[in-house]
Amino acid sequence: MKNNISPTTEKDNRGLNKTRLEAFCDGVFAIAITLLILEVKIPKHADLILYGGLRPYLVQLWPDYFAYVFSFLVIGIWWSNHHYLSRLFTHTDHYFSMLTIGFLMSIAFLPFPTALLGDFISDTTHRSTAISFYIFGGLLLPSIFWNLMWRYGINKKRLIDKRLKESFIKGLTRMYFISLIFITSVLALSFFFPIVSFSIMIAVNLFFLKAPKKPEYANT
Amino acid sequence: MKNNISPTTEKDNRGLNKTRLEAFCDGVFAIAITLLILEVKIPKHADLILYGGLRPYLVQLWPDYFAYVFSFLVIGIWWSNHHYLSRLFTHTDHYFSMLTIGFLMSIAFLPFPTALLGDFISDTTHRSTAISFYIFGGLLLPSIFWNLMWRYGINKKRLIDKRLKESFIKGLTRMYFISLIFITSVLALSFFFPIVSFSIMIAVNLFFLKAPKKPEYANT
Amino acid sequence: MKNNISPTTEKDNRGLNKTRLEAFCDGVFAIAITLLILEVKIPKHADLILYGGLRPYLVQLWPDYFAYVFSFLVIGIWWSNHHYLSRLFTHTDHYFSMLTIGFLMSIAFLPFPTALLGDFISDTTHRSTAISFYIFGGLLLPSIFWNLMWRYGINKKRLIDKRLKESFIKGLTRMYFISLIFITSVLALSFFFPIVSFSIMIAVNLFFLKAPKKPEYANT
Amino acid sequence: MKNNISPTTEKDNRGLNKTRLEAFCDGVFAIAITLLILEVKIPKHADLILYGGLRPYLVQLWPDYFAYVFSFLVIGIWWSNHHYLSRLFTHTDHYFSMLTIGFLMSIAFLPFPTALLGDFISDTTHRSTAISFYIFGGLLLPSIFWNLMWRYGINKKRLIDKRLKESFIKGLTRMYFISLIFITSVLALSFFFPIVSFSIMIAVNLFFLKAPKKPEYANT
Repeated sequence: MKNNISPTTEKDNRGLNKTRLEAFCDGVFAIAITLLILEVKIPKHADLILYGGLRPYLVQLWPDYFAYVFSFLVIGIWWSNHHYLSRLFTHTDHYFSMLTIGFLMSIAFLPFPTALLGDFISDTTHRSTAISFYIFGGLLLPSIFWNLMWRYGINKKRLIDKRLKESFIKGLTRMYFISLIFITSVLALSFFFPIVSFSIMIAVNLFFLKAPKKPEYANT
Repeated sequence: MKNNISPTTEKDNRGLNKTRLEAFCDGVFAIAITLLILEVKIPKHADLILYGGLRPYLVQLWPDYFAYVFSFLVIGIWWSNHHYLSRLFTHTDHYFSMLTIGFLMSIAFLPFPTALLGDFISDTTHRSTAISFYIFGGLLLPSIFWNLMWRYGINKKRLIDKRLKESFIKGLTRMYFISLIFITSVLALSFFFPIVSFSIMIAVNLFFLKAPKKPEYANT
Repeated sequence: MKNNISPTTEKDNRGLNKTRLEAFCDGVFAIAITLLILEVKIPKHADLILYGGLRPYLVQLWPDYFAYVFSFLVIGIWWSNHHYLSRLFTHTDHYFSMLTIGFLMSIAFLPFPTALLGDFISDTTHRSTAISFYIFGGLLLPSIFWNLMWRYGINKKRLIDKRLKESFIKGLTRMYFISLIFITSVLALSFFFPIVSFSIMIAVNLFFLKAPKKPEYANT
Repeated sequence: MKNNISPTTEKDNRGLNKTRLEAFCDGVFAIAITLLILEVKIPKHADLILYGGLRPYLVQLWPDYFAYVFSFLVIGIWWSNHHYLSRLFTHTDHYFSMLTIGFLMSIAFLPFPTALLGDFISDTTHRSTAISFYIFGGLLLPSIFWNLMWRYGINKKRLIDKRLKESFIKGLTRMYFISLIFITSVLALSFFFPIVSFSIMIAVNLFFLKAPKKPEYANT
């Protein structure tokens, strides 16, 4: 792309690239987040008899609602972060697209651990496994791909906006890496204290609802 | 975003923001509305025997068709309103995105109360619960987030188009708040007169098919 | 929109309108077409025993593949037509959006009659009902909304590109109306000769794979 | 489109065409890739008893994870290739849209062979059929439509960017055709040595993760 065509065309192609990659990502995020509702179970006749009617059935379904809301926030926050990252990058390339597909693979996986969470959070025997699996599949995997995307993009200033301050970029690199270490620790903790580690995850999630750091540009 | 970069870049970033947020919303609306059909039940062999063939089966399925059409209109109207709101705002920010994710969470929830409505509207024992749950999950929740989004956007003229007439903005604020109070009242009513309150909801929905108020600008 | 703001802004708003409506439609089309695969049934253990293995199971599944391919083409052709219509219109308005939602409602309904077709096309008892229902829900309903959208858009030259030749517009109006009458007749026929009428539908569908009429402009 | 309207308008229309076709494709790709997770089976009570708990259940589910990851990569690579192809074409037309719908039909089909792969890859009796079916439906069919799209687009320089070098275009034509022959051979092989042929497919897939050939332009 670099030597054969004029700068203008190159820029255009890059723009197209980035827009379509974003549109594809937005599609996957939107679908994964909307599929979550399919995991909330519609009652069968036997369920109504078991729980004594529709009202008590809907009340005892709270773990499903909880899993729905929690995963909706998790995907929403990843979407928002992806949006933020995307604005710091000026273009994209093939290998970044491939890493993004890996990242999306871990996002699109979330309805599965969410269903397990809804089914087993109130089941003392299997709760621990469901929580560890959720932290692994729903939080650690996306975080690993996130770090790979970020490092690939900033390495040799490949994709990153060159106007950004060096200190700002380094700050983000550190923060993303610390998040990864933190999630890994919480996963390890979850094998011993599942409820404690899951509570930490909820708190962290709520914390991430706040606005991300304002981008800092060098010469403006 | 305000002090470090030039006004032009800031504007560009804002534009990007708004477009991607809209695209994401459109995605969730489109998926939620299309998933509704999955709640219309395909007959099993036993169903055909029970109802005496495919034709009577398809006829007795009217509550499912009704729930499908009604929720399709509900989501369609919310989409149209969101589209309208979006045009009154000039840009977006992080907290508005987060409120929007809350709003989308209540929209994406709709296939679940829709399925309950289709299953229980013709069942005298559970009909009342299904109707109340639908009004709560499918109408009240989106309305609450709608009011939050609106008030956040107009507060200190944060996101709202500054050219809009003050009286026009106040009119909308009033209307959205009255809608919220109204839906809450209908929900309360549904505990005692489920069919009456649901009929009111259908009427209101049909009423909202009409065009929203034309935006009024100050100095043009 | 007409008196309060300057022509430029008005035009911009119209553009936004049309783009978002198209994006929303494209979303619903894309989702409805992709959901069709969920109606192709994955074998359970009992199915493999019943049919004597996976290979014979996959062979006898031909009605499902057929229904998948046929409905994929139907939705694809509607999408292509919608695309074509959209280019003849210069802008959109609220009531056109509402009619479009009705049209999308009938498109998004298609996975249901498709599943019935796959289940009953090889079942001599219920085949007739499945075919009539498919023609009604999958072809007549979209065609009715199509005619409504078209007539609303050309009435008083409301949305239609004013540069188009009068004769071209009249030709399309006639063609769309004839299609509607034709589908209604085939539906009536299907009550007596289901296979004949369905074969006609397949032929018509293949016919519509050809390119639509080239738009004719008046003074260029 | 050619004689009746001015070049500018024609160009605009073409642009619209291509953008909407891409958006539609991106939608189908994004949905097909996200639906894959629905094929990973959520455990029922009986499953937990059969496998002795949630943890062993999640462990023995590896064929489902494998099928998920493999098909995610397959669709991701097709998406990336489609993106690449799209940049080599300057516009689109009706018959190209119809071929694209055929291509999307084979992409949207993938969740079905993926589910079979997950169910039968560890089942010695049915594994062979599942692998052959996957190679046929998930790899050969898209490849056939791919070759049709490409040849239609380059024939008489119909849609292809006229600035591209003749040798570059010929190189791609050869490569796409060789891929088709290759997949057909692997399919034939799969009837005798299913695991060998499937291993080749995995290797090929990993190979395609690398960047495609840089477009070469004639006079720049």
